[in-house]
Amino acid sequence: MNYVVACLTSFNTGAEEVCIKARGRSMSRAVDTVELLRRAFLKGLGVKRINIGTEVMTREGRASNVSTIEITVAKAESK
Amino acid sequence: MNYVVACLTSFNTGAEEVCIKARGRSMSRAVDTVELLRRAFLKGLGVKRINIGTEVMTREGRASNVSTIEITVAKAESK
Repeated sequence: MNYVVACLTSFNTGAEEVCIKARGRSMSRAVDTVELLRRAFLKGLGVKRINIGTEVMTREGRASNVSTIEITVAKAESK
Repeated sequence: MNYVVACLTSFNTGAEEVCIKARGRSMSRAVDTVELLRRAFLKGLGVKRINIGTEVMTREGRASNVSTIEITVAKAESK
């Protein structure tokens, strides 16, 4: 919900599009944020682009691969 | 990993593209599956389409909204 508010703030201060990024198990939250925005707050909001990828993270000296997602949403579907 | 094997089986039995669907907190696993496939097993695999959406689920008589993701991957990027 905090992310929804942050996106709304961006749009209300003039942003034309917002990119929501997440990695690992938070990826579902990125999708939830976008869906909540579209459903409840900004009816005209369109998903412009969704990219997925992999990042290498090093924790405690061990490298591991973590999936990432980037969802770009835009007002009034400026495709 | 089971999903990775399932996708590999589909491709090996002649499928041109495979659609991986998930909802709720499993959405990150769908992305993990695709990334693992691309990184480790099918180098030429391309992400053809990613759709997100919302489904209404009724559990114990109460309706709730659940986000969904659908990722379509294809051999040799047949865009």
